[in-house]
Amino acid sequence: MGSHASRDFPNKSPYPLPFHHLIESLRTLPGIGIKTATRLAFHLLKAPEEEALQLSREISGLREALVLCPQCQNIMDRDSRLSCCTICADPARDPGTVMVVEDIQTLYSIERTGEFRGRYHVLLGRLSPLEGIGPEALRVRELLDRTGTGEIHEMILATSPTVEGESTALYLARLFKPLGVKVSRIAFGIPVGLELEFVDDITLIRSVEARRPM
Amino acid sequence: MGSHASRDFPNKSPYPLPFHHLIESLRTLPGIGIKTATRLAFHLLKAPEEEALQLSREISGLREALVLCPQCQNIMDRDSRLSCCTICADPARDPGTVMVVEDIQTLYSIERTGEFRGRYHVLLGRLSPLEGIGPEALRVRELLDRTGTGEIHEMILATSPTVEGESTALYLARLFKPLGVKVSRIAFGIPVGLELEFVDDITLIRSVEARRPM
Repeated sequence: MGSHASRDFPNKSPYPLPFHHLIESLRTLPGIGIKTATRLAFHLLKAPEEEALQLSREISGLREALVLCPQCQNIMDRDSRLSCCTICADPARDPGTVMVVEDIQTLYSIERTGEFRGRYHVLLGRLSPLEGIGPEALRVRELLDRTGTGEIHEMILATSPTVEGESTALYLARLFKPLGVKVSRIAFGIPVGLELEFVDDITLIRSVEARRPM
Repeated sequence: MGSHASRDFPNKSPYPLPFHHLIESLRTLPGIGIKTATRLAFHLLKAPEEEALQLSREISGLREALVLCPQCQNIMDRDSRLSCCTICADPARDPGTVMVVEDIQTLYSIERTGEFRGRYHVLLGRLSPLEGIGPEALRVRELLDRTGTGEIHEMILATSPTVEGESTALYLARLFKPLGVKVSRIAFGIPVGLELEFVDDITLIRSVEARRPM
């Protein structure tokens, strides 16, 4: 199969080249297969031109329009009049409690719950010796700077329950506990609403180990 | 809910404005909900910049890069050295048999089967008195021109089995039969592989009416 072949046409793409290239680019997006990519391409061809041009501009201008918050490393509007992101700038949020996350998506997942009223720190990665990602590749220096002001009293480590996420949490705990920061890890156990029979073994073991008195 | 609100955040979007706008534009695409739009936006933020820029260019340049085939009204590469689309230019395809379709998507659906070896004519619409779409809004003039050369001997009407598609087929049959063209309509009936109990009433009635001797 050549680079111009689509999976549903056995020999070669029947589409004009520019249309074919758009389908191939859309297919590289996560969760977009050949059928969805083709449907999206036809939609973009038929939609009002200004709609397609606007999407195009928003994609190409995205990085230019965003900067990282100098405090928590969340994305923020470059044109914002604030010197930090809206979360760090919110006086109603407790600057003493900082949730440490691997990436910006996790920050917004927690934000969506509407329950956490502290602030964040985005590491923009996780330790992975196999991939050559050491502490210097993460935004740890910035977290040390924030701790240095004495403002942070609790740090909640919300990295993933993977080998890399666990080593990252362990590394941060060892680094920040001696500095007098209360360090905690989010709880892992049985997801709410799941029948126990469907829970994997490791999760079951960890939930028993982490049992709490009633 | 304001125009900047996302469905999964009850009050207002927590994202920086440029990121929020991209999510909203992606949400207007068919089959893309808020979750997929958000995932795509994060992917575009994290993907290699050249990948995002290429997609952006392909979207914005699409209309400029395509023209309609002067014969069949299919899309074709503007930069093509051919004076018509690859299907019309293919000498192996019978110019005497023309499949008339409503839109370009239908053309490629039939093309995907690999069975039809004639040519096409795309109407770019269908008759719809309610929407004020008359014959002059469709590419009927171009089909008359093609018939005028005497090359077309059979016309297969592959418009949809909807009120509009049926009126379009009826209109074309009345127009082209007096010109000596053999006009046929694609068959409607039970889809292959479907249990009869799940077939809707109108399809069942039509398949009985259109019964064929064995």
